[in-house]
Amino acid sequence: MFSSFTRTATKTRLPSLLRLQSTFKIPEKQMGVIFYKHGGPLEYKELPVPKPKATEILINVKYSGVCHTDLHAWKGDWPLAAKLPLIGGHEGAGVVVAKGSAVTNFEIGDLAGIKWLNGSCMSCEFCENGDESNCLKADLSGYTHDGSFQQYATADAIQAAHIEKGADLAQVAPILCAGVTVYKALKTADLRAGQWVAISGAAGGLGSLAVQYAKAMGLRVLGIDGGDAKKDLFYSMGGDVFVDFTKYGKTDTQKMNQDIQKATDGLGPHGVINVSVSESAITQSTEYVRPTGKVVLVGMPAGAVCKSDVFNHVVKSLQIRGSYVGNRADTREALRFFSEGKVKSPIKVVGLSKLPEVYKLMEQGKILGRYVVDTSY
Amino acid sequence: MFSSFTRTATKTRLPSLLRLQSTFKIPEKQMGVIFYKHGGPLEYKELPVPKPKATEILINVKYSGVCHTDLHAWKGDWPLAAKLPLIGGHEGAGVVVAKGSAVTNFEIGDLAGIKWLNGSCMSCEFCENGDESNCLKADLSGYTHDGSFQQYATADAIQAAHIEKGADLAQVAPILCAGVTVYKALKTADLRAGQWVAISGAAGGLGSLAVQYAKAMGLRVLGIDGGDAKKDLFYSMGGDVFVDFTKYGKTDTQKMNQDIQKATDGLGPHGVINVSVSESAITQSTEYVRPTGKVVLVGMPAGAVCKSDVFNHVVKSLQIRGSYVGNRADTREALRFFSEGKVKSPIKVVGLSKLPEVYKLMEQGKILGRYVVDTSY
Amino acid sequence: MFSSFTRTATKTRLPSLLRLQSTFKIPEKQMGVIFYKHGGPLEYKELPVPKPKATEILINVKYSGVCHTDLHAWKGDWPLAAKLPLIGGHEGAGVVVAKGSAVTNFEIGDLAGIKWLNGSCMSCEFCENGDESNCLKADLSGYTHDGSFQQYATADAIQAAHIEKGADLAQVAPILCAGVTVYKALKTADLRAGQWVAISGAAGGLGSLAVQYAKAMGLRVLGIDGGDAKKDLFYSMGGDVFVDFTKYGKTDTQKMNQDIQKATDGLGPHGVINVSVSESAITQSTEYVRPTGKVVLVGMPAGAVCKSDVFNHVVKSLQIRGSYVGNRADTREALRFFSEGKVKSPIKVVGLSKLPEVYKLMEQGKILGRYVVDTSY
Amino acid sequence: MFSSFTRTATKTRLPSLLRLQSTFKIPEKQMGVIFYKHGGPLEYKELPVPKPKATEILINVKYSGVCHTDLHAWKGDWPLAAKLPLIGGHEGAGVVVAKGSAVTNFEIGDLAGIKWLNGSCMSCEFCENGDESNCLKADLSGYTHDGSFQQYATADAIQAAHIEKGADLAQVAPILCAGVTVYKALKTADLRAGQWVAISGAAGGLGSLAVQYAKAMGLRVLGIDGGDAKKDLFYSMGGDVFVDFTKYGKTDTQKMNQDIQKATDGLGPHGVINVSVSESAITQSTEYVRPTGKVVLVGMPAGAVCKSDVFNHVVKSLQIRGSYVGNRADTREALRFFSEGKVKSPIKVVGLSKLPEVYKLMEQGKILGRYVVDTSY
Repeated sequence: MFSSFTRTATKTRLPSLLRLQSTFKIPEKQMGVIFYKHGGPLEYKELPVPKPKATEILINVKYSGVCHTDLHAWKGDWPLAAKLPLIGGHEGAGVVVAKGSAVTNFEIGDLAGIKWLNGSCMSCEFCENGDESNCLKADLSGYTHDGSFQQYATADAIQAAHIEKGADLAQVAPILCAGVTVYKALKTADLRAGQWVAISGAAGGLGSLAVQYAKAMGLRVLGIDGGDAKKDLFYSMGGDVFVDFTKYGKTDTQKMNQDIQKATDGLGPHGVINVSVSESAITQSTEYVRPTGKVVLVGMPAGAVCKSDVFNHVVKSLQIRGSYVGNRADTREALRFFSEGKVKSPIKVVGLSKLPEVYKLMEQGKILGRYVVDTSY
Repeated sequence: MFSSFTRTATKTRLPSLLRLQSTFKIPEKQMGVIFYKHGGPLEYKELPVPKPKATEILINVKYSGVCHTDLHAWKGDWPLAAKLPLIGGHEGAGVVVAKGSAVTNFEIGDLAGIKWLNGSCMSCEFCENGDESNCLKADLSGYTHDGSFQQYATADAIQAAHIEKGADLAQVAPILCAGVTVYKALKTADLRAGQWVAISGAAGGLGSLAVQYAKAMGLRVLGIDGGDAKKDLFYSMGGDVFVDFTKYGKTDTQKMNQDIQKATDGLGPHGVINVSVSESAITQSTEYVRPTGKVVLVGMPAGAVCKSDVFNHVVKSLQIRGSYVGNRADTREALRFFSEGKVKSPIKVVGLSKLPEVYKLMEQGKILGRYVVDTSY
Repeated sequence: MFSSFTRTATKTRLPSLLRLQSTFKIPEKQMGVIFYKHGGPLEYKELPVPKPKATEILINVKYSGVCHTDLHAWKGDWPLAAKLPLIGGHEGAGVVVAKGSAVTNFEIGDLAGIKWLNGSCMSCEFCENGDESNCLKADLSGYTHDGSFQQYATADAIQAAHIEKGADLAQVAPILCAGVTVYKALKTADLRAGQWVAISGAAGGLGSLAVQYAKAMGLRVLGIDGGDAKKDLFYSMGGDVFVDFTKYGKTDTQKMNQDIQKATDGLGPHGVINVSVSESAITQSTEYVRPTGKVVLVGMPAGAVCKSDVFNHVVKSLQIRGSYVGNRADTREALRFFSEGKVKSPIKVVGLSKLPEVYKLMEQGKILGRYVVDTSY
Repeated sequence: MFSSFTRTATKTRLPSLLRLQSTFKIPEKQMGVIFYKHGGPLEYKELPVPKPKATEILINVKYSGVCHTDLHAWKGDWPLAAKLPLIGGHEGAGVVVAKGSAVTNFEIGDLAGIKWLNGSCMSCEFCENGDESNCLKADLSGYTHDGSFQQYATADAIQAAHIEKGADLAQVAPILCAGVTVYKALKTADLRAGQWVAISGAAGGLGSLAVQYAKAMGLRVLGIDGGDAKKDLFYSMGGDVFVDFTKYGKTDTQKMNQDIQKATDGLGPHGVINVSVSESAITQSTEYVRPTGKVVLVGMPAGAVCKSDVFNHVVKSLQIRGSYVGNRADTREALRFFSEGKVKSPIKVVGLSKLPEVYKLMEQGKILGRYVVDTSY
């Protein structure tokens, strides 16, 4: 279906776009993908352009990444109610074309990004401490707030991401969720440059970003994934040691744990980032992690339970830390690594109208890398 | 002039006040204290009631604390430009009587507090990390934004303090600046329950609050101040060891340092909070603090320079940390200690119309404890 | 069997003891309790007095606490090999009567304590970072090193606890393990004064110490335990809110979780210390803890597994932290709270010869509070 | 005098050395450099080989770095008493040839390093917290304990550094003090990968190591030093932005501060490492550092005082942190960066007998890079 990874150059189109802005009139109508009930048809159709509130900006979304969470929102299989009808998407990159009367931190023409956390109360204990994603009133893009699978979307100005002028908007889109998420997970692991981090699911969409961020942070990286293609990808990103789980039998986790520990000073990695969606891989990570080490949970296999042997957990003084999505500071920092060229995001660009087909591939587990939709066709 | 510390009971008046609110109409005019040039007359006069912006609340200020910073704002002797004409005050406690269209975190009738930091951009690196007071666009109550020395004042809804229903508004006023400031300083010292903190200026306005917060945090407290009255006050608040600096000659700091160290396990306090406005006291604190200890700067004597011997600083691995004002989380936490009754604020209440006389006393250094103005007369 | 909680006063006996020291000759023989195989007879008999190595001190143990771990060591039911034959005990308080040639940090006549961690390599990554209990060469009192159930025991001088002159040696004994363990767990929870901590098993041996330490640290404490006697004990120690789990049915954990959250600002406690030995209580604590909160594992029910729902763990950004035993700094700090009178240890003193009967009671789960053995009879 | 930077290859010589060890007999006599009074002659002469205590190892020192501190020890111009007569040196790398009876963490034939901190009590509050260099009983190599300017030196086994088998002993020598010191300073600055660090004195002996460590930690590095040669060296090590202080007049620090800030997001560096020995450079660093930033003091110009404007310090919430020398963990970590090849140490090797001439050059400020003495001639 999708012939290649070639994509139109956003950079060259932007200058003319900005010139247009001065005389630009926001249209009444736009194209977007909407669904009216969970699992119902994903309709690519004409929709009204939303109006920003006093504290919101209106973003002309150019590109949007497609994330597994979008699939959950559509299916409605998470224990968290979504709005209906819903326009999904929470990795949108575009240009600010309008703003509410109270907005002071964005100008028309700025590049801006839509994140999973569209807005929060900024006034509860969680928001005050920078844990905005834990706000009980969190407003979620493509979940409780219409998202980036449309040409014009609104975003709370405080939470919206600032994207550097000149950025490649297609490339940056997946950083807004996938990139920030793994960067936050690495911060949650709280490691020091020179320490070992294991990334379980190292060559997947999240994993390959995690490897790059980890290297940029000065960590030594052990990747766990399956097959030679993944191994090659891992080493091409600068990973240090690859462990191929397909080389071990189901009952052979002891041997695999030993090999992981042998490769990491004989003691195990100081931290583990679990981006794979395997329940057993999570439990296994509590076995091979170094004493005093930190196991970070990121991926959320449906209905999964993390099981940890209490004796092992206590005697080794382990920590199992859940990491959700990044806050404003995490977003700024994750974007900076991208704009410095330290993190690259391998994408495949298709038209927004093809979104239903991307969902189908995602359901079938057939996606490698990240799909990005171009809202212009 | 002010006969005593007795004050009218806020608590009993509030219920009727709240009943009134339902049919309440915000007046066009109010009384406040304004000055038109630095050092010029402080005029108590009729002023227009300000209108809240979309993101602001309008607070009917009942009481406001008076702080040394107000004196600096009036004199204009700080290297930071203030607005003119200016209505001062940044420790205002009152009732929300109106709110902008975008405000979701306050309801009419809620109790709210005006802090030094009236508002900030919420979008820069500092705001993102909870260092809102370091925001380059910080808007300061009673300095760059008309403050609480008027009956009706506006405040950014995100930054305004939430005060618990039923709180004594006169008592809580000084917590909003003085209380939060010393609480933040103690957090900046980053001590563990059971460790020693020295408070230089322990029986002054800030110091006496610092002693109470420190005890509520489980710290052992050594107080430094001068005279028996201060010593008695210190011990009445639960302080552990008092050192009277008037007992030592000017050239006798060595002996005083030794006495402080002897009282603190022979090693010196783990942290020092400098709320006194003495430059030499600050320098001295770098001498008696425990190796690896933390000296916190809070008070800002005009033109003062903190001098630290580099050899001593390095070999003892000392830290000198500046602590400015608290953020939203600090404010919430500092207020909670107050509402639990762990911190009391000794105040003297006078009418707002007497503010010029309070400034005069403050200039003469004749104030003990905290003055609070009642905006109703 | 044991008539009461009265005990002989150690304090008055110590001075004469110290006088004796000067002319004191260490005997060749002593009394102690030894067993030769797991589950075999606990023999109270004459044993040789051990000789300290160059880096060890010899302690004349006056009192020793009896801990559940001693039962595990005797039974041999932990996945960690113990030495055989074995003299148990790891909460011993006594007087230094001899020291190896390389010992510089103890003098003859000093009071010293034997802890679970008898010694460690001091040279591995864990020891260097203060995680000595995670040292792979850790030497454990009453487990891999003969312990405090004898009149004379050896201890590594670096790890042995320094006990303040004049301390009540019977009272201080349980602090050396039980006290340090809960103090370490509270440090592991990493809470700030004013926050809520829940203690699951609040009125048991560990729990009642945890409540006292938590209050001394300025925390607000919610206790969970069963029955009115425990409720009364909890409040007598200064606890804030008691939740009686016996009031809820087995299928009623939802209601109990809600009640716990209602009592803690509606959000749940910021931290939970699991000292109860109930697997289901551990899992439940991951449900009622506050978002971004920390669940600490301390108690180790045999074969228990901590189960945490991954979605909940991630979306609430929870942390589950194992806390083992304290290091040297934790020990010093825990003892200081005791010597300041902020933590009391309710004990029942019996002769060392009665140890087998104490084990029997412990096996039957009939022990309330802490037994301490007097090695003199 | 010293023709070049060429040096004999340690690596090739080591195998034969190790073979010899098995039949090796420690000699009674050796060569070393000793002085009998401060400023007195530095005598290269035959000296007795010291005997290790029960807790010490005896190291056959192959190479030793020469540090400015050695000059201070000889002159006796620091406010800290040194032993006399004294054999200096505290960057010694060699082979363990004997060990005391209580030593368990070293084997004969292991490579070991002598650091500034030869030993400490391991039992005080500072040692317990990993602040061993702040121990009041700290024993200092080449200062209170005969050091590495001899062929055989003793070192406390707990504090002695473990050097990886196969390491280049000449190259590794300066890491033991200079490397560890700057690595510790960077840890003290407590920065996150991606943040800006300024290094004042970036191309000197300490500075050039600091630049390499900073880059390995993922930091962005701004270097301050004077002249084009230093600029070239800085960029060759991967530094990001160089500021040449010689381009600014004495009264032009404002402009220089602005340029530093402009280069670092317009806000200034998040941290500053002061390795230059200029008092005014230290004070200036408190001006250009970013609000909430951390100024680290490392270099100790004789009699220098760090002066910080209190208003600036408080309002910007700055921290000035002293960083002394690394602890055991810092040493292990700093050595690991070296053994991974991430940090290179540019040295000039001369015979130990030439040490007096090296001191002379050092006094004259004529040394670029690090001198290392070979103890064999």
